[in-house]
Amino acid sequence: MTASFDIIRAAYAELIVSDLAASRHFYVDILGLVVTHEDDDAIYLRAFEEYLHHSLVLRRGPQPALAALAYRVRSQAEVTKAATHFESLGCPVEHRASGATRGIGEAVRVIDPLGFPIEFFYDAEHVERYTRRYDLQGTGAISRLDHFNILTPDVPAAQAHYESLGFKVSEDIQDDAGTVYASWLYRKATVHDIALTGGDGPRLHHIAFATHERNQIVNICDTLGAHRRSDHIERGPGRHGVSNAFYLYLRDPDGHRIEIYTHDYYTGDPDNPTLTWDVHDNQRRDWWGNPVVPSWYSEASTVLDLDGRPKPLVERVEAQEAAVTIGADGFSYTREGEAMPEYKLGNQV
Amino acid sequence: MTASFDIIRAAYAELIVSDLAASRHFYVDILGLVVTHEDDDAIYLRAFEEYLHHSLVLRRGPQPALAALAYRVRSQAEVTKAATHFESLGCPVEHRASGATRGIGEAVRVIDPLGFPIEFFYDAEHVERYTRRYDLQGTGAISRLDHFNILTPDVPAAQAHYESLGFKVSEDIQDDAGTVYASWLYRKATVHDIALTGGDGPRLHHIAFATHERNQIVNICDTLGAHRRSDHIERGPGRHGVSNAFYLYLRDPDGHRIEIYTHDYYTGDPDNPTLTWDVHDNQRRDWWGNPVVPSWYSEASTVLDLDGRPKPLVERVEAQEAAVTIGADGFSYTREGEAMPEYKLGNQV
Amino acid sequence: MTASFDIIRAAYAELIVSDLAASRHFYVDILGLVVTHEDDDAIYLRAFEEYLHHSLVLRRGPQPALAALAYRVRSQAEVTKAATHFESLGCPVEHRASGATRGIGEAVRVIDPLGFPIEFFYDAEHVERYTRRYDLQGTGAISRLDHFNILTPDVPAAQAHYESLGFKVSEDIQDDAGTVYASWLYRKATVHDIALTGGDGPRLHHIAFATHERNQIVNICDTLGAHRRSDHIERGPGRHGVSNAFYLYLRDPDGHRIEIYTHDYYTGDPDNPTLTWDVHDNQRRDWWGNPVVPSWYSEASTVLDLDGRPKPLVERVEAQEAAVTIGADGFSYTREGEAMPEYKLGNQV
Amino acid sequence: MTASFDIIRAAYAELIVSDLAASRHFYVDILGLVVTHEDDDAIYLRAFEEYLHHSLVLRRGPQPALAALAYRVRSQAEVTKAATHFESLGCPVEHRASGATRGIGEAVRVIDPLGFPIEFFYDAEHVERYTRRYDLQGTGAISRLDHFNILTPDVPAAQAHYESLGFKVSEDIQDDAGTVYASWLYRKATVHDIALTGGDGPRLHHIAFATHERNQIVNICDTLGAHRRSDHIERGPGRHGVSNAFYLYLRDPDGHRIEIYTHDYYTGDPDNPTLTWDVHDNQRRDWWGNPVVPSWYSEASTVLDLDGRPKPLVERVEAQEAAVTIGADGFSYTREGEAMPEYKLGNQV
Repeated sequence: MTASFDIIRAAYAELIVSDLAASRHFYVDILGLVVTHEDDDAIYLRAFEEYLHHSLVLRRGPQPALAALAYRVRSQAEVTKAATHFESLGCPVEHRASGATRGIGEAVRVIDPLGFPIEFFYDAEHVERYTRRYDLQGTGAISRLDHFNILTPDVPAAQAHYESLGFKVSEDIQDDAGTVYASWLYRKATVHDIALTGGDGPRLHHIAFATHERNQIVNICDTLGAHRRSDHIERGPGRHGVSNAFYLYLRDPDGHRIEIYTHDYYTGDPDNPTLTWDVHDNQRRDWWGNPVVPSWYSEASTVLDLDGRPKPLVERVEAQEAAVTIGADGFSYTREGEAMPEYKLGNQV
Repeated sequence: MTASFDIIRAAYAELIVSDLAASRHFYVDILGLVVTHEDDDAIYLRAFEEYLHHSLVLRRGPQPALAALAYRVRSQAEVTKAATHFESLGCPVEHRASGATRGIGEAVRVIDPLGFPIEFFYDAEHVERYTRRYDLQGTGAISRLDHFNILTPDVPAAQAHYESLGFKVSEDIQDDAGTVYASWLYRKATVHDIALTGGDGPRLHHIAFATHERNQIVNICDTLGAHRRSDHIERGPGRHGVSNAFYLYLRDPDGHRIEIYTHDYYTGDPDNPTLTWDVHDNQRRDWWGNPVVPSWYSEASTVLDLDGRPKPLVERVEAQEAAVTIGADGFSYTREGEAMPEYKLGNQV
Repeated sequence: MTASFDIIRAAYAELIVSDLAASRHFYVDILGLVVTHEDDDAIYLRAFEEYLHHSLVLRRGPQPALAALAYRVRSQAEVTKAATHFESLGCPVEHRASGATRGIGEAVRVIDPLGFPIEFFYDAEHVERYTRRYDLQGTGAISRLDHFNILTPDVPAAQAHYESLGFKVSEDIQDDAGTVYASWLYRKATVHDIALTGGDGPRLHHIAFATHERNQIVNICDTLGAHRRSDHIERGPGRHGVSNAFYLYLRDPDGHRIEIYTHDYYTGDPDNPTLTWDVHDNQRRDWWGNPVVPSWYSEASTVLDLDGRPKPLVERVEAQEAAVTIGADGFSYTREGEAMPEYKLGNQV
Repeated sequence: MTASFDIIRAAYAELIVSDLAASRHFYVDILGLVVTHEDDDAIYLRAFEEYLHHSLVLRRGPQPALAALAYRVRSQAEVTKAATHFESLGCPVEHRASGATRGIGEAVRVIDPLGFPIEFFYDAEHVERYTRRYDLQGTGAISRLDHFNILTPDVPAAQAHYESLGFKVSEDIQDDAGTVYASWLYRKATVHDIALTGGDGPRLHHIAFATHERNQIVNICDTLGAHRRSDHIERGPGRHGVSNAFYLYLRDPDGHRIEIYTHDYYTGDPDNPTLTWDVHDNQRRDWWGNPVVPSWYSEASTVLDLDGRPKPLVERVEAQEAAVTIGADGFSYTREGEAMPEYKLGNQV
């Protein structure tokens, strides 16, 4: 399928936060993201190997929410094509002047068919790339934004939408009946720029940043403990089955979920094989079989429309992954063909 | 307090296992321990930096149990003193000829006042130390046995016993009323050779092996996943509050608990400070605040007497740590003086 | 500049080796590459995250040499366009039937304007991707082929050739007079698929494989030591200034140079900044200022033409990097504007 | 052999430095050591897991030198015994009042028979142990002082002296004729508290600090590069043959040599085997066969007497290690019994 315009990658997220000082402590003092600019209304952050103005905007607002997920496109002409594409789909489209978001040139924001506020931009201010600034990088140095993960009720429909934008599927989770529980899609040559998680939506599940090594992720946990902020840790660290990445899920002061992520694999060849996991495989979500905490499945960030109003939720009709794997079905397994005597999480309570 | 004889360190454990082949797969094929000798009755294993004949004996028997925990003493004369000491306490004492355990010289085994089968030995066969055999060491190379952890009902009484043997306390867990929930004691200059965990006993909680780095412990998890044996992972990996060590708890095919452990600290000076943790501090057992799985508190290995019969259990009378921290007390905290709104594990179910 | 056809990435190298058994010991037993196929004439190897038939072919021959560097293109149609492109340049072009190289479909090999035997292919046999086979991966697990590095007399001319194929420059080394000593170019979103090193050519400087972490590269050194094969280590481990990657250079039993490489950075955006290093900056080749061993500058592999005959060398006319930085110029520095009192390597002898 | 008094371990060094500000930048800003106290005359530093007042004193003075190496003994009574012991040997002995060195109680300093200023102390001020202060620890967090290394002309004589103080030999380097080139001895259960290197002496070769992991040592190199201070790196990082430790040698602003060191092994059992290396084994000093830079063999710090005057040097009479291994003997090997065709360093020049 030929896309109407050329998206490069997931580029930045704009989150509404309730207390800029609390957010700054979390993202800057603890996680070590670099402040490109800050004022009374917003903080613009980047990671150590990024040279665009920001990969995360924290904007003060009345209640926590996602304001936009931004993809970078290959040129300014592609921004125009993006607008045309979404207008042709009948989606709300907002043309944004250069600087409407600090550091970003002329851009468009749309409400996509899945209900998410999505920005497409090319032009952006360049800033110093801190790749070799080991004097500034702390023990958990974050290199770059990696991907977004969203909750949407109908995964195949969402996947078809993203495929129409030129994304390809690297991995997914299904059951024998063909129900798709989640799907991972990419433009850049990693496992994903966007993950589609089946659930009531539109909601933001998380945004993910990459480090180079596992020890840096473990160091982030140690640092949170030293700050007596270990309650920001929601899940992990662990090794994903899907993506094979080493992961950690944090919740920021407003409850926005942030993943720190490393070690996925190259997907840049056109015949990169798609890997399908059985929803009953206990190692799909954690290769070590550690249980997924229920909040990870159930909680997520509200999404705003282009006027800043919360989008109403559409319920997922098909089975929920949490329900078919933590419940009483008895079909989860570690070794295929061998019944798992007890599920780990069940053991725990 | 002057000890009656000079113990060097925790040196080996003898476990009764029900299926030698299954145990061999776990300890040798997956964990990578080195086989010094094996026959139809037993497998003698050591880690890569050990030069004594073994640090773990797996002996075939009718049901899983602990047959002995062995401490090395400074000389053969100290073995004799150990026998005298325990005879004077009225404990059962068995004098064992050289070779009674393969690779071990003349030794004594006693049932100590806590009800555990404990061996003291000095003489042992030397074998090749594989310190630099990186060609043989796998991704999770285990360096040496580090410590034992036992369940005993009365921690202060058990601590007094070990202090009478010359051990010193590095850390413990108490509550404001002075109840001691657990205590860590050492002879060698690490955080512990023996940990005393309050609970129905005598039972073996776990034996622990050390690696050099955290990534080796993470690699063990990855390898278990690749073998589709992730259900051997009971808890972790994580960072302990107590000891500051990075840890992983596994259960072997018989349910014996094995810890893989790294990064604790030097304790060899005589004024090494004792660190006391509040039982309500959520970071004491896991610095990252991740919950302790209930089985970790409740399950443990049966202990045998010198005739190979299971020792009956004595119940703990004082409060159990699991009961006061996972239950409805509401006094657990991450930041002292600040009520913790919800306990993580509670969130999960 | 628009390329005539669409290259994806550096995909495989074919090396002529004099003793297949010796090469197998090095690449398989020590480095741990996976054997896809082997017979009396050749060994086909891949790394753990690769799903194409091979990324390295070792073919038995009378004397060590490079037989081909192969780039993958986006489709079979692009193979045809590649042939047309090089024919239009007047280069020798060989059309190769499917299976001419085991595992590879219809392809073309050319002698490019720089004198190198280059293959373009799309179709290739898929094999199992061992991404999660941690049971098979050793301590120095290699993930994938990363890049080629070649010696060529005229770097700007070579760079212009590669730019005409759609490559972009990530970094280079120059002096104040504009002499270009080396240049790094990429198609996939890493620092390079091809590096151009100024020197007598055409010769192969090295091929490079990637790992995920630095500790895996250090482990390879430890393993070579355990095999008493430390003399395979030529340079490193170290941190490059250029590319910021952590590196190790090995020489295989025939003297072919192999780099093990990790931690470079994302380059996939169209405005990725080019970084130019001063040839007199002592941290350009090693961020830690460790000297480059002279053999690294002077020795390289012979290159064959399409008939298997060694290509004659063309001498570099411009200054050689080794000459201007190790010699008596006295202009090398660690802190710009501050004369370096003595050069490290000079200190050593 | 029974020692006259009970030494615990290498505890602190006092270095004379010419510029406190320059030293502070190196040890505090770059290496991250913790300042316990500083004034116009001296800076008192400790590592993150130490609870005594300091493990390194930097004292301002006219020219760089070693003022004292301090061992901790088991009690105050042992300090007295130490004085008696050295008086009986006819050595200069200075009784120092509590606070003569800030943070240290009553102590004695002696000039030992090898010509070194050695302090013995027990009493010392306790300060906060920063074991879990991951919020303060940087990427190269140093845990504790590990050992001293000194140059002395007659290694067997020096070894006999240290054995008379209760030290035991873990490893040494000899040739077939029995010449001892270097020897490693310990009191605490690591490979060494003191290393004796054959050479003109008395001079201080280096003091060494430990980290937990190799990646922390590599991070120190990266940080030095970012500060444009890579010229502080003299040798490494690498893996020692002797001790099996991962190492890095730095030179401070005055040329004092500092080793950062990790991963040696447990030596606490009384029958710990002594490992003797052949001086012609190319992997003894670096397991990867990388050459030792000549300055590492030839340069060292001046040693002061108890009145602060430089001690005159006594020349080594026996062969120097650097002379027999880098020179024209041709007897160095990587694989025993196989002549090494060329020595790596020879290749380089």
